[in-house]
Amino acid sequence: MTPITLITDFGTGSHYVAAMKGVILSLCPQATIVDIAHDVPPQDVRRAALLLDDVADWFPAETIHLVVIDPGVGTDRAIVYAQIGQQHFLAPDNGLLSRLAARKPPTKLLQLSEPAYWLPQVSTTFHGRDIMAPVAARLAMGLDPDRLGPPLERLLTLDWPLPRESQARVDGVVIEVDAFGNLITNITADMLCGRPTDRRACIVCNIYETWGIYHAYAEQAGGTLVALIGSGGRLELAIVGDSAARRLGVGVGTPVTLAWEGKEE
Amino acid sequence: MTPITLITDFGTGSHYVAAMKGVILSLCPQATIVDIAHDVPPQDVRRAALLLDDVADWFPAETIHLVVIDPGVGTDRAIVYAQIGQQHFLAPDNGLLSRLAARKPPTKLLQLSEPAYWLPQVSTTFHGRDIMAPVAARLAMGLDPDRLGPPLERLLTLDWPLPRESQARVDGVVIEVDAFGNLITNITADMLCGRPTDRRACIVCNIYETWGIYHAYAEQAGGTLVALIGSGGRLELAIVGDSAARRLGVGVGTPVTLAWEGKEE
Amino acid sequence: MTPITLITDFGTGSHYVAAMKGVILSLCPQATIVDIAHDVPPQDVRRAALLLDDVADWFPAETIHLVVIDPGVGTDRAIVYAQIGQQHFLAPDNGLLSRLAARKPPTKLLQLSEPAYWLPQVSTTFHGRDIMAPVAARLAMGLDPDRLGPPLERLLTLDWPLPRESQARVDGVVIEVDAFGNLITNITADMLCGRPTDRRACIVCNIYETWGIYHAYAEQAGGTLVALIGSGGRLELAIVGDSAARRLGVGVGTPVTLAWEGKEE
Repeated sequence: MTPITLITDFGTGSHYVAAMKGVILSLCPQATIVDIAHDVPPQDVRRAALLLDDVADWFPAETIHLVVIDPGVGTDRAIVYAQIGQQHFLAPDNGLLSRLAARKPPTKLLQLSEPAYWLPQVSTTFHGRDIMAPVAARLAMGLDPDRLGPPLERLLTLDWPLPRESQARVDGVVIEVDAFGNLITNITADMLCGRPTDRRACIVCNIYETWGIYHAYAEQAGGTLVALIGSGGRLELAIVGDSAARRLGVGVGTPVTLAWEGKEE
Repeated sequence: MTPITLITDFGTGSHYVAAMKGVILSLCPQATIVDIAHDVPPQDVRRAALLLDDVADWFPAETIHLVVIDPGVGTDRAIVYAQIGQQHFLAPDNGLLSRLAARKPPTKLLQLSEPAYWLPQVSTTFHGRDIMAPVAARLAMGLDPDRLGPPLERLLTLDWPLPRESQARVDGVVIEVDAFGNLITNITADMLCGRPTDRRACIVCNIYETWGIYHAYAEQAGGTLVALIGSGGRLELAIVGDSAARRLGVGVGTPVTLAWEGKEE
Repeated sequence: MTPITLITDFGTGSHYVAAMKGVILSLCPQATIVDIAHDVPPQDVRRAALLLDDVADWFPAETIHLVVIDPGVGTDRAIVYAQIGQQHFLAPDNGLLSRLAARKPPTKLLQLSEPAYWLPQVSTTFHGRDIMAPVAARLAMGLDPDRLGPPLERLLTLDWPLPRESQARVDGVVIEVDAFGNLITNITADMLCGRPTDRRACIVCNIYETWGIYHAYAEQAGGTLVALIGSGGRLELAIVGDSAARRLGVGVGTPVTLAWEGKEE
């Protein structure tokens, strides 16, 4: 059965998550529910938007992604249905989908307005359970998205820091720290095209430097700071066998510079 | 397939949970296992009883709920099967089901005694794996609950603090803190019937006060203490965009008073 | 559908885990994915090897276990397919399977080398997603394991501390601390055969002692240190209603001695 994925800030083990799953299974008993994350920091729309952008492409066509980080629940913020690629997305219109949509523009964008597909009683504080979960279940059962509500002109978008590129350097920033403490930046592999990746490339983060871009963590000895292109196609910094975040004392938002020797401006 | 839900205090990622899932899937390969929570604080029967009461109604008929918080495992405490509404419940008889059962009396109550439905070897320390998981799997496969054992007269019950109501006020208590730090009380929406919910209603928690009962968190500015009726139908206190638990320095057990002006006794 | 279980150190809620699930569901939409643990401490091969050994036997025949603790990803370490009992295992060849395999020798051992069964593009840092997940999905779809690659002669093995047994005592060590703080040792039930388990048996851990081996935690009063044979068939130490790890200030690696009175050497 088509997967329904969940990204929320409700907390792993929270009764809010269980209630959403119960609603989905009540309407679509054969749903394949996939927990992506429930430990997004409370109301951290940006973190969830990044996570969604990281994972969506790996799921099959027709997957329904349900993203509920919803500080504006009960106000007049819209809830959107978006078709992006061949997948379906449901989220409050607060920027959650905007990072993915910047890369892959939606082919359909609707504002949920048809209560026939919601729970009979809708609370003012939990639209994940009362609106989005039943709509996801009904989409999984084959409901035509066009019946959910009228078109929405555009998504609310958030600004994302872009690296500044010049001939001799790229100035980026750490956008994610993974469970290993690896520092994942917004500098992408294509920014390296045609430039040396050997020791002429110098990567600076905080007061630390490393030279060359490696292929695997274990190419260097334990405790070494290494730069490499991670599995998401972005430059990342790691300490072999340890946490770069902890050892370097840095985190999301820390500037990272990639500079090429002899090309200083 | 009928869902089998799990609530335990074994810890997310624990081998105890995996063993239970393995046993269920060995006997019922098509089971839809739903993790509700495995991070209930060790042996906290009350927390699990509240959680079960919060979530059970959202699941479909025939759902099998397996709740394993079992400090008395291996002693002569009973293991019960309860039919409540149209759902099935399996748990040690230590109060886990008593909060839900107070609201919705069981229509069938049995004591598990028929080893034919258990694993061939039953340990003295893990009846979740050796007795309850195989029974849940067999119920999912269509086993008639009446074959599990003889009727049990009554569940062991726990006392739950009830709010004290008078004409001018309701004295309740925080019974839950969610992942946002919202303080959820035992004061229910029906206790507000016919009483003003505007600024004549004063809510006091610790040394903090707020007036009026709102509909949505974001109706007030960030950092404001607001009271509202949460998605579970209970009075809750929240700090907009922040954690009320942390900011107010309170938690489960803290008294919360709702008082109406000009109606002081 | 045959279960595919996952053990990783990627972190619960990590995008790495979601990507693996997306890949599996893209190739095998009806897969039953079972999260065993994603919170293995980063690169802790031993912890994952123990966990796998604890849980594998409880899963049904044909289960596919995917274990991704892979500090050597991108180097020339092999990725192995092992058939153990009637189950399938996929893991980097770094010792992850060696504890289970010591107990149940593999009946088939292959080195993954056939890229036709991998993703078209293989990164150098995430073979869990690019190699192991698609292979697991294809095995679940019925792929003959023999097509994965050539035989591998032997698994890389790790040394595991074995208890030292003599007539009067067994010297073991804590190998696991569970969510309750119970201390699980490498002393197995069979080492007690024919020896007294009553108060003539003295168990020493750090500076603490207890006498006799009990059957259930709750046989003693709250706060008591008790020894018992746990559900995995190993001697464990627990504090009734509390955490032995915290109360005794000990953890993995702490020596535990079981000695019989009057039998001192």
